[in-house]
Amino acid sequence: MIIDCHGHYTTSPKELDLFRQQQVALIDGGTRGTPTAPKISDDQLRESVEKAQLKFQRERGTGLTIFSPRASGMGHHIGDGAVSEAWAHVCNDLIHRLCALYPENFVGVCQLPQTPGVPPTNSIRELERCVKEFGFIGCNLNPDPSGGYWKDPPLTDRWWYPFYEKMVELDVPAMIHVSASCNPNFHATGAHYINGDTTAFMQFLTSDLFKDFPTLKFIIPHGGGAVPYHWGRYRGLAQDMKRPPLKELLLNNVFFDTCVYHLPGIELLTRVVPIENILFASEMVGAVKGIDPETGYHFDDTKRYIDAVKTLSEADRQKIYEANARRVFSRLDKQLAKRAA
Amino acid sequence: MIIDCHGHYTTSPKELDLFRQQQVALIDGGTRGTPTAPKISDDQLRESVEKAQLKFQRERGTGLTIFSPRASGMGHHIGDGAVSEAWAHVCNDLIHRLCALYPENFVGVCQLPQTPGVPPTNSIRELERCVKEFGFIGCNLNPDPSGGYWKDPPLTDRWWYPFYEKMVELDVPAMIHVSASCNPNFHATGAHYINGDTTAFMQFLTSDLFKDFPTLKFIIPHGGGAVPYHWGRYRGLAQDMKRPPLKELLLNNVFFDTCVYHLPGIELLTRVVPIENILFASEMVGAVKGIDPETGYHFDDTKRYIDAVKTLSEADRQKIYEANARRVFSRLDKQLAKRAA
Repeated sequence: MIIDCHGHYTTSPKELDLFRQQQVALIDGGTRGTPTAPKISDDQLRESVEKAQLKFQRERGTGLTIFSPRASGMGHHIGDGAVSEAWAHVCNDLIHRLCALYPENFVGVCQLPQTPGVPPTNSIRELERCVKEFGFIGCNLNPDPSGGYWKDPPLTDRWWYPFYEKMVELDVPAMIHVSASCNPNFHATGAHYINGDTTAFMQFLTSDLFKDFPTLKFIIPHGGGAVPYHWGRYRGLAQDMKRPPLKELLLNNVFFDTCVYHLPGIELLTRVVPIENILFASEMVGAVKGIDPETGYHFDDTKRYIDAVKTLSEADRQKIYEANARRVFSRLDKQLAKRAA
Repeated sequence: MIIDCHGHYTTSPKELDLFRQQQVALIDGGTRGTPTAPKISDDQLRESVEKAQLKFQRERGTGLTIFSPRASGMGHHIGDGAVSEAWAHVCNDLIHRLCALYPENFVGVCQLPQTPGVPPTNSIRELERCVKEFGFIGCNLNPDPSGGYWKDPPLTDRWWYPFYEKMVELDVPAMIHVSASCNPNFHATGAHYINGDTTAFMQFLTSDLFKDFPTLKFIIPHGGGAVPYHWGRYRGLAQDMKRPPLKELLLNNVFFDTCVYHLPGIELLTRVVPIENILFASEMVGAVKGIDPETGYHFDDTKRYIDAVKTLSEADRQKIYEANARRVFSRLDKQLAKRAA
């Protein structure tokens, strides 16, 4: 089975957007309260993924998507903790319903109700709900709830520790994933996303976070931002700072996905990062939707690149496509067994 | 001749730091005014580079460094426009003196007196002074004078246009280079630098800046941040946004240096970015100072990687090492001829 560890529900029915618009309008109007939950039928849910995520799964031969709400829609900068919690609730409920409709195609990862300046303890309740009640196997953690102004403490600050304790207790990893950018300097998917990835890695490199949490696991998406391309720089910076080698320092805890949309990038990734640390992903239907005129295939059809890397053995591919995801998302096997039972 | 287009004066005598400390102390004390310019002898200048930049030039067989003040020392977030101007003045004067002492080894690029919220017109006077009086051939332009909070408009905003007009008039390119990070989220050389590069590229991709300034030229350092690794993503994003192909959109105006500290990274860079757009650079003595235990050579000895790329022809190497720099830094040849006369 090929597991895609990074898929977002980017094709939700308009009722979801409408709910969010009403929510934002209430805030702008200075009113507290939550709009009525959107009414979306099972048929609407089916229709929203049949011609998109499921079609691509079938066409590309990928089997199971680790699925979460639309990342750019998380919008943690909007409203307060209660607003973010209501929004996460609605978004995660839809993921749960899709997982129930398509138990062979989707397994859930949750959006967290983060808010700038609000301690991440506020996200614990929703994480527990999604893991315990819905069988979700991870979460998306936003390192910058402000949306491009980077006002909260680094991921290695004790500010985040209570949330990490819950992650460890529940045995779920987090994908580090920013949301929309409100800063005109940062294009969302072209700059803010990639910067968020690079920034998180460097935070980990300079800290002893994984001494405090030896079993904490993070996936850095988008191929690790700039990190594999600058692997020599990062090895050198760690060495200059008298830190342990990267392998020892963080590669038991930090993993990269394969959302890199051309063969040379995937070749670099698989050459410099240990195979054990690479998880297959496509981010579909996501950041880049078009077909590459140079190949005739979708830019985000990343399986083609991995299949084309000559230096990978079949055992390597099996790790990237399946075994690593099963290891990093420790609850996945249990969840699949439960569904099969 | 091998031209290194990215070298900073990171080894200045302590008198320069002392000047800056006094300047900062005056601001902190609420006093206006500038401390006495630092007294640094020619012997001190010679000593500061003989065992560092010049030693590496000799050892590595690179001939001429395009040399500018220490990037992390620019500290544009400190003080007001007058403070930044006095500081740029002092730093650029030292570069000018080093160029006079070592006309075969250094050619100058200036620090600009930028300040958050202050229009870039404030930098025009210092640019003119350095180009016209000192024979400098370019400048370092900070896309984020706030030092990690990204408060000024994007590089593509009309805010910057008067400065670009002067660059075009003087026929000098700018290297896009952030300075220190005051934001605890961003490690300077490991995150803020690389993010600045990626951010600038995406700003260019989404704008028509080069329609307005067809001869404006920028060098994006550190191998272009994350850009070449995600070349497929950027091609795809441009296409999704109905922008022209990258080559047409910006590759007459945007160039990448080779400050990528391992062979796989340099291989990727030279494979995906047209050779015409790559300028040799090492950033020495700079971000990474150590020796790579995997190779036995300095991480920043980037010439070794370029020499080792099997797919490059001698003509390609000549472009990367020399011809592209002479083309992008259009005043270089004239300046060298003037020195030889």
